[in-house]
Amino acid sequence: MSTETHSIPAGHGLALRLAAGDRVSVICGNGMQVVDTWAFCAEDSTHAMSMEHSRVENGRLCAREGGAYFTDRREPILAVDRDASPGVHDTIMAACDAQRYVNLGCTHPHRSCADNLREAVAAIGFDIARVPQPLNLFMNIPLIENQVLVQGQPLGAPGDFVTLRALRDCVIAFSSCPQDITPINGGAPADVPLRVERA
Amino acid sequence: MSTETHSIPAGHGLALRLAAGDRVSVICGNGMQVVDTWAFCAEDSTHAMSMEHSRVENGRLCAREGGAYFTDRREPILAVDRDASPGVHDTIMAACDAQRYVNLGCTHPHRSCADNLREAVAAIGFDIARVPQPLNLFMNIPLIENQVLVQGQPLGAPGDFVTLRALRDCVIAFSSCPQDITPINGGAPADVPLRVERA
Repeated sequence: MSTETHSIPAGHGLALRLAAGDRVSVICGNGMQVVDTWAFCAEDSTHAMSMEHSRVENGRLCAREGGAYFTDRREPILAVDRDASPGVHDTIMAACDAQRYVNLGCTHPHRSCADNLREAVAAIGFDIARVPQPLNLFMNIPLIENQVLVQGQPLGAPGDFVTLRALRDCVIAFSSCPQDITPINGGAPADVPLRVERA
Repeated sequence: MSTETHSIPAGHGLALRLAAGDRVSVICGNGMQVVDTWAFCAEDSTHAMSMEHSRVENGRLCAREGGAYFTDRREPILAVDRDASPGVHDTIMAACDAQRYVNLGCTHPHRSCADNLREAVAAIGFDIARVPQPLNLFMNIPLIENQVLVQGQPLGAPGDFVTLRALRDCVIAFSSCPQDITPINGGAPADVPLRVERA
């Protein structure tokens, strides 16, 4: 086994190729940074991790420690080996994109998770046709009366982490969410340390 | 204005071309039938109604009467002109597909909402590349402690309906959900009457 470390710069993205069995620990260094996470099958980027299918297969909004996330063909792709956080993550809010920031009143270009994903996979020569619903690690979206979605602050502490294990050869991508208008990152985006253990 | 009526056979699908301003009323004839609903921009099927973007734009799981659903480019596509039901609909459970029924223990082929969508759009010569997360009209998925998703029975009454208005030229597609293993349709699938008012 070999271990490597990465640091995703605040508000930017990173994509990695994983072989089945490889693990990535995503660390919430400041206890407040949301990390949008995607996975795509290595041999076919149209076969991707799907939050909507995972919700049905798990009977839950998020997978628990020991559980897994599934693809849009209902095949397991990422296992949650460890969740050293309050376990509050989001699977229902779309990745932020340029239009999101226009709608929030931005008059200048703003980095976004959707663009971070596109940049990150392009940097490793992997083509994707669209931006799936991400697994928004550490993102806290309280639901009021089963309908109203609140943009909450993360509930964790510095050093919280989630360890994901590839259940098949895949490309995994992350975005240090650059949102600095709503409170979901607790204010300013932060760097995201990653620890990768190769099987 | 002209009015036409359709009846979607139980467990089957139907797609219609709508011009901006056209309205469709989707009727829950027996008070129990879930109707998976999709919309695609007429000029580009890759630009489609998106539940994940609608949730962010609305700050709610479902749009209310007077509200709208949005595309994956955050553009409004369907307005909810009237919701004559308890207003309990689902936007987070993937459409059932062949694999869903295999996972539920079916040993014979089973109709599915994903296949119904593909059949329905093919019947009008409209190509789609994938099955987006549907708006599951009348579907009741109680959420326990903000995590556990229950396959509930619809809460409405016979004759409940929702009237959707096209905000742009689009293809709208429906599936009378053929699910007869979980209780989400209250047992057996039923026909779905539609009333279309052309602007």
